[in-house]
Amino acid sequence: MISDPVLVEAWRGPLVESRHRGAVAVADADGKLVLSIGDVATPVFPRSAVKALQALALVESGAADRFGLSDEDLALACASHSGEPAHVEGVTHMLAKAGLDASALACGAHWPISHAAAFALAKTGAPSVLHNNCSGKHAGFLCLACAMGIDHVGYWRPEHPVQQEVRGVLEDLTGAALGPDLCAVDGCSVPTWAIPLKNLAHAFAKFATGQGLQPERADAAARLRAACAQNPWYVAGTGRFCTEIMKLLGARAFVKTGAEGVYCGALPELGLGIAIKCDDGAGRAAEVVMAAVVARFLPLDAAQRASLVRFVAPTLRNWNGIEVGALKVTEALAASSP
Amino acid sequence: MISDPVLVEAWRGPLVESRHRGAVAVADADGKLVLSIGDVATPVFPRSAVKALQALALVESGAADRFGLSDEDLALACASHSGEPAHVEGVTHMLAKAGLDASALACGAHWPISHAAAFALAKTGAPSVLHNNCSGKHAGFLCLACAMGIDHVGYWRPEHPVQQEVRGVLEDLTGAALGPDLCAVDGCSVPTWAIPLKNLAHAFAKFATGQGLQPERADAAARLRAACAQNPWYVAGTGRFCTEIMKLLGARAFVKTGAEGVYCGALPELGLGIAIKCDDGAGRAAEVVMAAVVARFLPLDAAQRASLVRFVAPTLRNWNGIEVGALKVTEALAASSP
Repeated sequence: MISDPVLVEAWRGPLVESRHRGAVAVADADGKLVLSIGDVATPVFPRSAVKALQALALVESGAADRFGLSDEDLALACASHSGEPAHVEGVTHMLAKAGLDASALACGAHWPISHAAAFALAKTGAPSVLHNNCSGKHAGFLCLACAMGIDHVGYWRPEHPVQQEVRGVLEDLTGAALGPDLCAVDGCSVPTWAIPLKNLAHAFAKFATGQGLQPERADAAARLRAACAQNPWYVAGTGRFCTEIMKLLGARAFVKTGAEGVYCGALPELGLGIAIKCDDGAGRAAEVVMAAVVARFLPLDAAQRASLVRFVAPTLRNWNGIEVGALKVTEALAASSP
Repeated sequence: MISDPVLVEAWRGPLVESRHRGAVAVADADGKLVLSIGDVATPVFPRSAVKALQALALVESGAADRFGLSDEDLALACASHSGEPAHVEGVTHMLAKAGLDASALACGAHWPISHAAAFALAKTGAPSVLHNNCSGKHAGFLCLACAMGIDHVGYWRPEHPVQQEVRGVLEDLTGAALGPDLCAVDGCSVPTWAIPLKNLAHAFAKFATGQGLQPERADAAARLRAACAQNPWYVAGTGRFCTEIMKLLGARAFVKTGAEGVYCGALPELGLGIAIKCDDGAGRAAEVVMAAVVARFLPLDAAQRASLVRFVAPTLRNWNGIEVGALKVTEALAASSP
């Protein structure tokens, strides 16, 4: 295994306090790497960073049209949402369109990612499965099962036809064989298959362009990208990195976080896909790396470049609001700084 | 800089998902290293891991006796508490003993570390400075200022006599010269001085034994250790690592977390001090390393050893309670496994 370089430093005052190592792959739709840092060949669990790929079957199968899913619904199917009220309402409506309710969701309950939403909820109740950041993805799986005319119970198990369909789509896009030796259980209980970063980057380049995909799959990718670009709040939530980047750049940059320091993305106008893994699982570093990669490849005007600074080099403040340090990319990525 | 080894792996199903590098120093009161892994010579910010050393002046100055501070109060002065109701009450009483109230605290407010306490608080209000995990330490600084007969306003600034006193104690115990080039601002706004792990381990061996300290300072160390051993809940809170380890081992092991993956500790019967830094700042890994180091050095009976397993190799579960993986120490620390 290649030793990954330090990509992000956390500075406090005059010194580096902590260091985040990681790997980055940026590829085109032919699978050619245009950037490769660290180990991009060892399989890593992409976790929620591939939700948009997991949602392809929902669209290409006709399930989304059959149940009249809106663009907001499709964005929720690709989302790690913050559990804010409109996210919860959206997933509830999505389930209702397939004749289901929250009792069908197998994702488990957790408090909303949004602190404001969590504390507001705490005043009157406790979280349900709808507040789980993955509830939109699960609602998409359930819609797919219903459209396939099969029993939706157990839709989260690796052997269920829905997950087998999803596995097939992931194999098609990534070009990786996804056997049981690469399979683990995700936070929301669906399978997560480990895939090398170079294959994930290739997959997102195909997602960005449709190149190398069957027409229905290419159309589904374009529809999901447009749905997310038009509804970035539904993909994450208030103030979240994915939402803010897509609000800033619209359809020019699709970015999606995954747990344990993973980020995937697509830059359609350049035909590029991006895959990032911070070795230690740190989301704060993965965000900085994604911002730096976007800034390195995408032509930006001065205002956009200025807006990206707070993501590429975020200031760290303490409980009194005093500036105590910053996260900064290292020379391994310095050419990416805006 | 030495490249620190991977000390902890986060497994998911059949594969390692994330990796945490770090460094460990274990020293005796002469400063002799009995264990040295990775870079123990470069200064690191100990953050809250040195709160017990920062509290020495409170005791040795006579301030603690003058205001009749209890052992619970002294444990709170050493604490990163969870903001549970009895923590908040304790700090309130501690301030009252010096004729002060919460308005004197300069630590800033944050939601309680305890999720249960935070959600209970959200039903009726919002957090105050008393809920800040450092409020007990700050109350100790304020008691010290009052006992010194000086203006307590600005007690958190590096140039204030209280912080100069604390800096002197840290220099005495660590043997490190702490100049402005090593000073940054902590989360609660007091200064944090970067100190090499080998010096921190030496300091905690002196804290564990009193060896090499003036009699008043040695007595203060013994009193603080006893206060924490007898009141481990006040040092952290319900279910927290520091609390659980000290509940399990009593006065035989003092352990204290710091932000950004730091842990310090003392094993008095062995005359040893411990200092740990995870490069990436991960608290989950620092806990595993501390548990492994304690298990390696401290003679334990079978029941204690069994109780430590959940800290040395904690199981990871998802939102449905399904076991999805575990944290495990690597060969660099494997001899430490219980």
